[in-house]
Amino acid sequence: MLISDLGGEAALINLIRGKYGATGAGDLALGIGDDAALIRTGDTFLIVTADLLIEGTHFRMDIAEPYLVGWKSAAVNISDIAAMGGTPTYSFVSIGLPDIEVGIVESIYEGMRDVSAKYGSVLAGGDTVASGAGIVINVTQLGTVEPDKVARRDGAKAGDAILVTNTIGDSRAGLELLLKFGLPPLTPPYQGGERSTPPYKGGEGGVRGSEVCVLRHLKPEPRVNEARAAVGTGKVHSMMDLSDGLAADLRKLCEASNVGARVIASALPVSEDMHIAAARLDLDPVHLAAGGGEDYELLLTCDPKAAPTIARAIARTGSTARVIGEIIEGDQVTLVLPTGDEEPIGGSWEHF
Amino acid sequence: MLISDLGGEAALINLIRGKYGATGAGDLALGIGDDAALIRTGDTFLIVTADLLIEGTHFRMDIAEPYLVGWKSAAVNISDIAAMGGTPTYSFVSIGLPDIEVGIVESIYEGMRDVSAKYGSVLAGGDTVASGAGIVINVTQLGTVEPDKVARRDGAKAGDAILVTNTIGDSRAGLELLLKFGLPPLTPPYQGGERSTPPYKGGEGGVRGSEVCVLRHLKPEPRVNEARAAVGTGKVHSMMDLSDGLAADLRKLCEASNVGARVIASALPVSEDMHIAAARLDLDPVHLAAGGGEDYELLLTCDPKAAPTIARAIARTGSTARVIGEIIEGDQVTLVLPTGDEEPIGGSWEHF
Repeated sequence: MLISDLGGEAALINLIRGKYGATGAGDLALGIGDDAALIRTGDTFLIVTADLLIEGTHFRMDIAEPYLVGWKSAAVNISDIAAMGGTPTYSFVSIGLPDIEVGIVESIYEGMRDVSAKYGSVLAGGDTVASGAGIVINVTQLGTVEPDKVARRDGAKAGDAILVTNTIGDSRAGLELLLKFGLPPLTPPYQGGERSTPPYKGGEGGVRGSEVCVLRHLKPEPRVNEARAAVGTGKVHSMMDLSDGLAADLRKLCEASNVGARVIASALPVSEDMHIAAARLDLDPVHLAAGGGEDYELLLTCDPKAAPTIARAIARTGSTARVIGEIIEGDQVTLVLPTGDEEPIGGSWEHF
Repeated sequence: MLISDLGGEAALINLIRGKYGATGAGDLALGIGDDAALIRTGDTFLIVTADLLIEGTHFRMDIAEPYLVGWKSAAVNISDIAAMGGTPTYSFVSIGLPDIEVGIVESIYEGMRDVSAKYGSVLAGGDTVASGAGIVINVTQLGTVEPDKVARRDGAKAGDAILVTNTIGDSRAGLELLLKFGLPPLTPPYQGGERSTPPYKGGEGGVRGSEVCVLRHLKPEPRVNEARAAVGTGKVHSMMDLSDGLAADLRKLCEASNVGARVIASALPVSEDMHIAAARLDLDPVHLAAGGGEDYELLLTCDPKAAPTIARAIARTGSTARVIGEIIEGDQVTLVLPTGDEEPIGGSWEHF
């Protein structure tokens, strides 16, 4: 039976977890199945997460600069640490390299270093090997979290409010723009800091929207400060980061918590930039927001009475948080359309 | 400048360590450059190591079974934990997979599970992704070690005796046999335990030697018990595992310790099996022992007066340890031939 016949990536992960994964005994407080694993070490938990990126499958050197490939590969792991309520500490980078320009390798590491330094993490080890199969990058990220601040996927309760930070769908819109229009890669001054001059310009507002969305796709910001603010209230019931898209990720959170959810389409936080990009792409903004992945915003649930407290705490970090629906009994995860119709929430990213 | 122009893998690692690596401040007791990193957590050190294996570059599915690929990918990381004097605890496996048979994936995980269970470690997380570039496996292995039992590369002192465990060169002989004769892949009953019946037979003793060497190449045993026994004496000055071969690895240990070394060729522990295989391959056993990699035996140094104590401690685990030379002042690493001639110790495995 092929992996695709089994049901793809998700089914394979379930099989591996069930047959070969640790059961969460001893010092292992949380094994396979959340954003990261939790291991007891002294008074705190060690958080461990890993992401593997393969050239041609997960990134393309023709549309992404090496600096941004490095940034994103570290950022998505830091995002997983944030999703557990933790603080990133050390990263271990395994990299497989064809015999390419050293400058390309340095740019990858600069991107990783910059996003790591921004959120307090440093490179502490890894492996550097030759590759006959393009560039391969695995980042294993460590972090720490106090036991009373741990946020897991399995704590959502019926009646909880569902919140997301900032806006969603931007990253997918950015990817679609890159694929459809082949926008020029973001060049320095995007590297190493905030851009000063847009590297490309066009008529009307469309290009502004495109730029922002492309940047959100290529250079995501892990929401470490937002997550720490949220768990600092002591009122978060469950949390994860949005890597595969709201629809797919909310289903995972609901499955882990044995609950359902109802999301209000009109409440989804959609940026003006994404609206403009969606129009250019002739795509539905709600579909992009519900189905598009790689925003790396936070998805969390709490008692509805605590939602304003959490939103205020997050606002102090410079981000926003908005209630987009509620956790319900059962196992249905639905989207309530402006027409009042309710449908199963849309597709996901299935990699196989 | 290409990576190969820079000087290959070793030069690239030095560049990355110097420009992007952590400096060993704070909780990081030891960063890039040893077998593994050391992080202070409570009363003990957390050990972290990672190895990336890429199909076609580091393993070939046509000569190695999936079970053995899994075994080896976990074993080499467990060996790095042993090299620090530690005990393996948790592994995090990132795997990139084409749409292949699920049974192949399961066999890989069975191999990883079996060697992990044998040495007390369990799978606690990772990442499972699609790959358009063949099978890619990164294992990040965690372990722990008491502060007074840490063994590093940089503790060798002039006058130290140099010891290695068991025999060396067998793995390289096994690889050469596979490449030259395309010996049949090891099939079950090799999987999952000790073999009961050899899967292939031939005339004379040559085949016995071949079998043992091929098995040592495909199914290495990490020397966890031997390492723990050695550091338990409190007399180990420096230690590492032999992954790239005695010549290359002893040079690394000497560089880290700012010393030189003199190895006695006639003292190198060479198995009868490897002698037989070397004859079949028309290769020099001493060259195989000094230059061949992937034995995953331990290389350690200690005061010469402590060598018998350490050898006895290791003998109690069922392995052997033998003095092969001495640490000297300076930076020369030489091999003393039976003729009395002394030459720089032979080549290494350079991957780029």
